[in-house]
Amino acid sequence: SSSPPPSGYRKSCWYEEEIEENLRWCFALNSILHTGSTQYQEIALFDTKPFGKALVIDGKLQSAEVDEFIYHECLVHPPLLHHPNPKTVFIMGGGEGSTAREILKHRTVDKVVMCDIDEEVVEFCKEYLVVNTDAFNDPRLDVIINDARAELENRKEEKFDVIVGDLADPIEGGPCYKLYTKSFYESTVKPRLAQGGIFVTQAGPAGIFSHTEVYTCIYNTLRQVFKYVVPYAAHIPSYADTWGWVMASDSPLELSCEEMDLRIKQRVEGENKYLDGTTFSSVCTLNKVVRNALYDETHVYTEGTARFIYGHGKNDL
Amino acid sequence: SSSPPPSGYRKSCWYEEEIEENLRWCFALNSILHTGSTQYQEIALFDTKPFGKALVIDGKLQSAEVDEFIYHECLVHPPLLHHPNPKTVFIMGGGEGSTAREILKHRTVDKVVMCDIDEEVVEFCKEYLVVNTDAFNDPRLDVIINDARAELENRKEEKFDVIVGDLADPIEGGPCYKLYTKSFYESTVKPRLAQGGIFVTQAGPAGIFSHTEVYTCIYNTLRQVFKYVVPYAAHIPSYADTWGWVMASDSPLELSCEEMDLRIKQRVEGENKYLDGTTFSSVCTLNKVVRNALYDETHVYTEGTARFIYGHGKNDL
Amino acid sequence: SSSPPPSGYRKSCWYEEEIEENLRWCFALNSILHTGSTQYQEIALFDTKPFGKALVIDGKLQSAEVDEFIYHECLVHPPLLHHPNPKTVFIMGGGEGSTAREILKHRTVDKVVMCDIDEEVVEFCKEYLVVNTDAFNDPRLDVIINDARAELENRKEEKFDVIVGDLADPIEGGPCYKLYTKSFYESTVKPRLAQGGIFVTQAGPAGIFSHTEVYTCIYNTLRQVFKYVVPYAAHIPSYADTWGWVMASDSPLELSCEEMDLRIKQRVEGENKYLDGTTFSSVCTLNKVVRNALYDETHVYTEGTARFIYGHGKNDL
Amino acid sequence: SSSPPPSGYRKSCWYEEEIEENLRWCFALNSILHTGSTQYQEIALFDTKPFGKALVIDGKLQSAEVDEFIYHECLVHPPLLHHPNPKTVFIMGGGEGSTAREILKHRTVDKVVMCDIDEEVVEFCKEYLVVNTDAFNDPRLDVIINDARAELENRKEEKFDVIVGDLADPIEGGPCYKLYTKSFYESTVKPRLAQGGIFVTQAGPAGIFSHTEVYTCIYNTLRQVFKYVVPYAAHIPSYADTWGWVMASDSPLELSCEEMDLRIKQRVEGENKYLDGTTFSSVCTLNKVVRNALYDETHVYTEGTARFIYGHGKNDL
Repeated sequence: SSSPPPSGYRKSCWYEEEIEENLRWCFALNSILHTGSTQYQEIALFDTKPFGKALVIDGKLQSAEVDEFIYHECLVHPPLLHHPNPKTVFIMGGGEGSTAREILKHRTVDKVVMCDIDEEVVEFCKEYLVVNTDAFNDPRLDVIINDARAELENRKEEKFDVIVGDLADPIEGGPCYKLYTKSFYESTVKPRLAQGGIFVTQAGPAGIFSHTEVYTCIYNTLRQVFKYVVPYAAHIPSYADTWGWVMASDSPLELSCEEMDLRIKQRVEGENKYLDGTTFSSVCTLNKVVRNALYDETHVYTEGTARFIYGHGKNDL
Repeated sequence: SSSPPPSGYRKSCWYEEEIEENLRWCFALNSILHTGSTQYQEIALFDTKPFGKALVIDGKLQSAEVDEFIYHECLVHPPLLHHPNPKTVFIMGGGEGSTAREILKHRTVDKVVMCDIDEEVVEFCKEYLVVNTDAFNDPRLDVIINDARAELENRKEEKFDVIVGDLADPIEGGPCYKLYTKSFYESTVKPRLAQGGIFVTQAGPAGIFSHTEVYTCIYNTLRQVFKYVVPYAAHIPSYADTWGWVMASDSPLELSCEEMDLRIKQRVEGENKYLDGTTFSSVCTLNKVVRNALYDETHVYTEGTARFIYGHGKNDL
Repeated sequence: SSSPPPSGYRKSCWYEEEIEENLRWCFALNSILHTGSTQYQEIALFDTKPFGKALVIDGKLQSAEVDEFIYHECLVHPPLLHHPNPKTVFIMGGGEGSTAREILKHRTVDKVVMCDIDEEVVEFCKEYLVVNTDAFNDPRLDVIINDARAELENRKEEKFDVIVGDLADPIEGGPCYKLYTKSFYESTVKPRLAQGGIFVTQAGPAGIFSHTEVYTCIYNTLRQVFKYVVPYAAHIPSYADTWGWVMASDSPLELSCEEMDLRIKQRVEGENKYLDGTTFSSVCTLNKVVRNALYDETHVYTEGTARFIYGHGKNDL
Repeated sequence: SSSPPPSGYRKSCWYEEEIEENLRWCFALNSILHTGSTQYQEIALFDTKPFGKALVIDGKLQSAEVDEFIYHECLVHPPLLHHPNPKTVFIMGGGEGSTAREILKHRTVDKVVMCDIDEEVVEFCKEYLVVNTDAFNDPRLDVIINDARAELENRKEEKFDVIVGDLADPIEGGPCYKLYTKSFYESTVKPRLAQGGIFVTQAGPAGIFSHTEVYTCIYNTLRQVFKYVVPYAAHIPSYADTWGWVMASDSPLELSCEEMDLRIKQRVEGENKYLDGTTFSSVCTLNKVVRNALYDETHVYTEGTARFIYGHGKNDL
């Protein structure tokens, strides 16, 4: 029949996420593609009506098909474009494959190491996220299953032009909070950066209210370790919030709008959907509230002093 | 890992049904096994945490794995047990197969005609509801795809000991409201009943508030056509309500508790979970509110005067 | 304007109760009349669209305007009607006032002691539940603020014809679980019953699935203490379940349907909405599942062995 | 008691908004302060846990206590600051009072006309939104109850330095869609602007997906009428989206970051929370997706061709 289904039916299944304790964000579901449990995390893949396929880890939306390009273009392109000639990139986490996909669009890149602790998540994403199939098959990509810290510490002789932190938020008891500390940045990340190298990390929610959760602290922690630190942020609809990233280096991070556009043209395969020079000039210009909070932040993440956002990791129950 | 998953995760997907406009009943979901659209209806099968597999048609829960036995035992066993020797049974609707399953437990029965209009629903249930596999394969069962009214009218020479109405509620624009009218009972059902034959129908919700929707009208309509009419009702947890059935005949419907238990022992294969003589004596004894409303009802369903319950059928949009 | 409000608006506010962990029951709200915290409990009063005013204590619906008559008529009238001449009644709990209201309808009663531990709940209900105003003002009612156990133990010289347990469910850490034990019934309740006296208690959910939570244990515990024990149950729509009560005495609890109707006529002021002889004969006849479970139960509540239903009391956090 | 309330209780009441058909945004409620119906609209005021007091009209969140400053600072300050010396301002709509409040912070302003069609909304906001009490009492403010178009057409002799469109979204059947057309801007708005005058309007959602609903069309319509048109956008957490505004004039709209900060210092009473020169430079720099869509838009709102966003106005049912 060509008539539309009854509305009661069409909206009968919902995915519901507690953004915070008193705030729910609910997507009508087409189907539940997978739910399961790995050694480290709960993992699920839903086909949602408003945002397409949605990857959920430990009850938090990680990535939605229709707008993950905002997150991944913002995470990857600014550091790679600021670098004069990025050839080697190390990804901490990133098991989903989308971060690798964006990096591999850069023609200058000849080696990407993606180091995720959870093999099952990596295998799961390889199987289900067809948008990243080419990236997973790219011979320049080396997928390592290991703790990112251990892996970086083991690779004593190696240097990378860009290191990308694509890790879960620093949730208490979660697997990642130790990878956001001053000592980690100082002793593990910085020594692995080549001359002129750039570190970038996702930095949690950066909205008018949520930036105090971890964003300003991540920024301030990086400010203790690197000479040049650039925070930026963009609204991601499926997250129901503005998200933050921070880029850091001991070399100046300066690139005009026009130069960025030129480098995109020269270096990036295909066309970015979201990020170009103008977009970057907007996202790295923060509003008064968040800008002042970044400026005023005094807290530094050290082991034992991490600030935590809402939620609990699996090992904490 | 043996630790329990985070609670946020475990409850993130929900099936939600509007029992009525201002009342929602929500089941946590394990998975969405199937959603689709047949020529006549929207159909879905969910694996729910509180009630197991749940069959949903046009946005209304039809049958939940863990408690469908209440509905189907109440629909089938009272009329078959009141009949002295039921050999032939006609099911209007019943595509799910559970009604046939209960009938086929009766050793006296040698022929069951199940007539459902929606072939896709029948095929779907055959495939997914393994609990009814034996019933669908029973050589005594004859599955016909047709409109129940047309089928009964075509079988002019045939008579049945029991006719069972297992049809969707009489919703405006739904496929079934014509099968609840006085003229249908008089001209189509009654002539097909053998001497001493019994008609039974599901009769919609019969709770303290919901019995006024269709239950009392179905009862009163049958009262116009048959000499003996017995309404009964039982709480079904997955429906969040008490449900009603009505049994009708021109022969007396009398059976003591002990006789019913005896007949169950003699005639029914296996053991009923819910219905026995004592249970039936309770469910056919209605509370003051519903009893008085049945007694006082004056409305009779005729074509054009049907009362409708909340919801809309597919063809009505 | 006479046009109906947009549907989006009408259903925008909801009260949501977790019946169990994976099952939600949601009422559209007209207004939140009160929310607050007493010394013992969280208390709230909502004006709901489907069920009128709803009293919620510790996140569990206690009583809804439109169907509390089922609960309170079932709790009160069976024991008072089975008693030949009930003059004095003791209510453990019952702060809402509805239990007292039903008792005071009995012309034989000349003294009701209602003993609730939470003065603020009592004052709150006095103020907000106008349907009980007459009862609270009845000179036969004596409201005592005390622990019911302590109060019964203090009244060493006094005997009651009927003692009514209208207490919160025996939830772990809740204020009431000690008032459901064998030793409490034996040492505190029974000695306070006059010759021919009857004890009745609400006994938690009694549905096909939920009767195993506390209902069968309460029944079995009372069976250890009293000679005659009568369990009964009825579906209450706002609870989304069938509810249970148990009546117990050392005198026989026998009353025909007709005698009960006669006693109602002779003794009860006004007209019961729900309970009459026929209704009682139905509600005290339990279905096969619950009947067998009651029969088979071996667990006895003693201090330290209580079984608990879903939820947590305030003192337990 | 000092112990925290049980978590089940704290989250039992929810305000739920359908952002779009398959997307819900739910706030835990403290209380429902008011619900009612005016001649034109359904109106409600909720006290929500995540966003404070929330004003909801026709089922859509209009303004939340904790972040309405973003919307109102963005609507008001850019046009007033771009104007060399704004003295007179006309507000179309704005019954809430917050737009007037922001305008009245400008020391240059000596007359504000606020023209809202719905007297009851204005009275309601005067009573409940104490944050705007001073604004409502400011002698420079003239509140007129009238249709904004009729009022502007009546004031034939008058000119305004700034005209502000603070109207409901152009929803089909809603009261406002005629106030977003080319002919309205040309024949009604532009003639009432003084030399160098600036028009600004809220312009609906402007997120990565939602900007196609009305934002690009409002922009393109204004582009047909004014020489200089500046679109801008900012994420507003309580809306779960990025919001858009468009500023238009026949005089150049140029102001450096530093000049804007200087004018804020000179002209604005108190301190803006959100908007300063740097913030504005970010919000008026749009991302690639939205920027290209604005550039490519060809649709112009004329009476009869309005594009509509999700939802229905009251008069349309």
